[in-house]
Amino acid sequence: MNIQAIIANRRDGRPHSFQELEFLSRGAAKGEIADYQLAAWLMAAYLNPLSPQETAWLTLAMAGSGERLDLSELPKPWVDKHSTGGVGDKTTIALLPILAACGLTVVKMSGRGLGITGGTIDKLSSVPGFRLDLTPQEMKDQAGRIGLALTGQTPNLAPADKALYALRDATGTVSSVPLIVSSILSKKIAGGADTLVLDVKCGSGAFMPDLQAATRLARSLAETAALAGLNTHLAITDMDQPLGRTVGNALEVREAIDTLNGRSRGRFAELCVQLAGLTLFAAGLESSLEAGVSRADAALRNGGAGSKAELWFEAQGGDPKLISDPAALPEAPVRFEVRSDQEGFVRRVDARIVGEVVVELGGGRRRKEDQIDPAVGLECLKEVGDEARSGEALFVVHARSHSDAEQAAARLQEAVTFDPAPAARSPLILEHIAPSSQQPI
Amino acid sequence: MNIQAIIANRRDGRPHSFQELEFLSRGAAKGEIADYQLAAWLMAAYLNPLSPQETAWLTLAMAGSGERLDLSELPKPWVDKHSTGGVGDKTTIALLPILAACGLTVVKMSGRGLGITGGTIDKLSSVPGFRLDLTPQEMKDQAGRIGLALTGQTPNLAPADKALYALRDATGTVSSVPLIVSSILSKKIAGGADTLVLDVKCGSGAFMPDLQAATRLARSLAETAALAGLNTHLAITDMDQPLGRTVGNALEVREAIDTLNGRSRGRFAELCVQLAGLTLFAAGLESSLEAGVSRADAALRNGGAGSKAELWFEAQGGDPKLISDPAALPEAPVRFEVRSDQEGFVRRVDARIVGEVVVELGGGRRRKEDQIDPAVGLECLKEVGDEARSGEALFVVHARSHSDAEQAAARLQEAVTFDPAPAARSPLILEHIAPSSQQPI
Repeated sequence: MNIQAIIANRRDGRPHSFQELEFLSRGAAKGEIADYQLAAWLMAAYLNPLSPQETAWLTLAMAGSGERLDLSELPKPWVDKHSTGGVGDKTTIALLPILAACGLTVVKMSGRGLGITGGTIDKLSSVPGFRLDLTPQEMKDQAGRIGLALTGQTPNLAPADKALYALRDATGTVSSVPLIVSSILSKKIAGGADTLVLDVKCGSGAFMPDLQAATRLARSLAETAALAGLNTHLAITDMDQPLGRTVGNALEVREAIDTLNGRSRGRFAELCVQLAGLTLFAAGLESSLEAGVSRADAALRNGGAGSKAELWFEAQGGDPKLISDPAALPEAPVRFEVRSDQEGFVRRVDARIVGEVVVELGGGRRRKEDQIDPAVGLECLKEVGDEARSGEALFVVHARSHSDAEQAAARLQEAVTFDPAPAARSPLILEHIAPSSQQPI
Repeated sequence: MNIQAIIANRRDGRPHSFQELEFLSRGAAKGEIADYQLAAWLMAAYLNPLSPQETAWLTLAMAGSGERLDLSELPKPWVDKHSTGGVGDKTTIALLPILAACGLTVVKMSGRGLGITGGTIDKLSSVPGFRLDLTPQEMKDQAGRIGLALTGQTPNLAPADKALYALRDATGTVSSVPLIVSSILSKKIAGGADTLVLDVKCGSGAFMPDLQAATRLARSLAETAALAGLNTHLAITDMDQPLGRTVGNALEVREAIDTLNGRSRGRFAELCVQLAGLTLFAAGLESSLEAGVSRADAALRNGGAGSKAELWFEAQGGDPKLISDPAALPEAPVRFEVRSDQEGFVRRVDARIVGEVVVELGGGRRRKEDQIDPAVGLECLKEVGDEARSGEALFVVHARSHSDAEQAAARLQEAVTFDPAPAARSPLILEHIAPSSQQPI
């Protein structure tokens, strides 16, 4: 077997065998295949997309290209959750304690953010002392003790995906559904989970801008997960407006904490409860989605989720007192209100513009090597359907300087559009995708 | 301008601007664009082929990516000749002295061979003392003095092509007509010629196996050359059987010499005369192909070409006496006759098998870094249409060892097939492609 023949097969649209994809994955993981050959294969795979079977094979081959987390000491089911990323998406931080409070064991690896979609690791890095470099053994010990553990990605899990992923941005091969699917699922499989809930974001602030594209991705994820033997439920959720009331790292942690301690309810809390309910149903702890949602909602209301969050923060080096009083989180020196110059009912809050403004403020990365300012960001005071009077505040900008804040404010005026009549509130969950009936390969 | 956007344009089939192709070429030449990005672009260009205009732009951009040979001190026209490569193709070695004897100025850069198609530089390397590292100034001085000069490729001409070419074999992007065309023509333009004769080989021993593929390549070469302002005539010539009576480096030099000194006539001499005639017509020294052919034939018969060859060998450090007596060329220790086990009329001598046997004997390269044995090779005693009796010799193998020779002999039996009735002699020139009427861009 040689890489030239594998590239030629993809180029000419001939099917790959599992052995070919395993050869490719191992060679990529070990650095034995040149980057330029991987890049040629990626472009050929972009233009001649992998079949569902090939996608599942690539997923399994990449999952097997390095170490795999062995969760067998922990009680089943082992659940994991993944979001395709969006503006203001701090869901993981609130969801994990809810799930643990409901009796699940959650072991999760998260990534850093790039561009307008932030990363959970960056958000939690704004918590003083919070450790995000747990070893596999520490992960397992902690999850066994308190039911949840979260860490940054370890280099030895799915190294083939790491190698291919690093090339995709530079080679124009990011937006290929089979490549996205195998990248997401290979890491999840290597991470040891057997049950997975996937939140596919859809809208201007997400990778998939419309429901058609999001559905295509979601169906491919469902099919590939089933072929790979992973119990996976999916929800397509709205990302046309920012999720919740904050965008920016420390601000989002604060919002997640306020959700956990019961001080904040709204679209963000609702999404957490819905996804937690779906997870409880997916994992078999509840016999219906509705029952799952009730149990998750109860965990938020009765303080169970907040108590788990305190244990979690303490276990990973953060101050558990933050859960009742998040005032010790970093704060930006400048706060600046952006007031409406129109009045009416909010028709749109463009999540893309909001995300770009936060990156401009220093709260996100344009390039992988950029540093992030944890304190900057936005409070989004209005959501679609809300009424606003002229002169009423739409956003609060948290900035490093006045000039940064003024630049952000100018840009943010474009983000909001108004209607004279009340717009329909957009649904939070656009679609549920049930597990595929495909048999594992 | 950035390379990611250029890759995305090619990937999505959007047209490139000249500026984009110049950016790509300069970046490739200077090593400022990563190999993996060039590879992704190459695969995208393979699957979404460049238009004729884009091909011409890439040609000009690559030609301009390094130095260009300035031939303005030499009398016009400045002619160059190129073959797409075949088994036993030693044409350049005989053609250049014929052209110089007819009054043309020929300045030529040649390459090394890879696989079954040998390279002129490798063949001439078998001549003791022959220099193939002339500087641009030495090339021009020599061509001004005796009308011809030949050297190996200098690294500073069309370095963008060098960078892309080096990636194409490893990335499965060799057999793209626009990429082949721009690679060939960019080097020719950088080499300073204004008139070009291209020999597009067609058949089992060539890169283009059938007339349809060869015609497609030839038409694209003609069109791109015209768009790039190069006066170019093309012939598609037969490469289904080996060209001439020898394959292997020193053996081919000997055959070329025997053609120049008048001792050998046959298909190979005929091709030289035809291509020389075409060149004289293309360069405007004769008003018809026929007149050009007559003049070239006369130069072979009246000793003019042989005298030029002596001057040439002397000028580049070889022994001019070789032209009258090539006995001092390297010879292999073992000669082994391959006798026919059938009888009848030769229907086919498979050039591909013959070429592969010579590579096996050590006369060609499988990989770029392989060393070549100048002395080994084959004499091909029969051509299509010849009669052979059972037991009559078909080939003489020139080998390093008896075991090498025996292995070659076994393989060569497959190369020849017979008919009971005489097969038609295959034509030497399959098609002439006149210059395209496209105006230069």
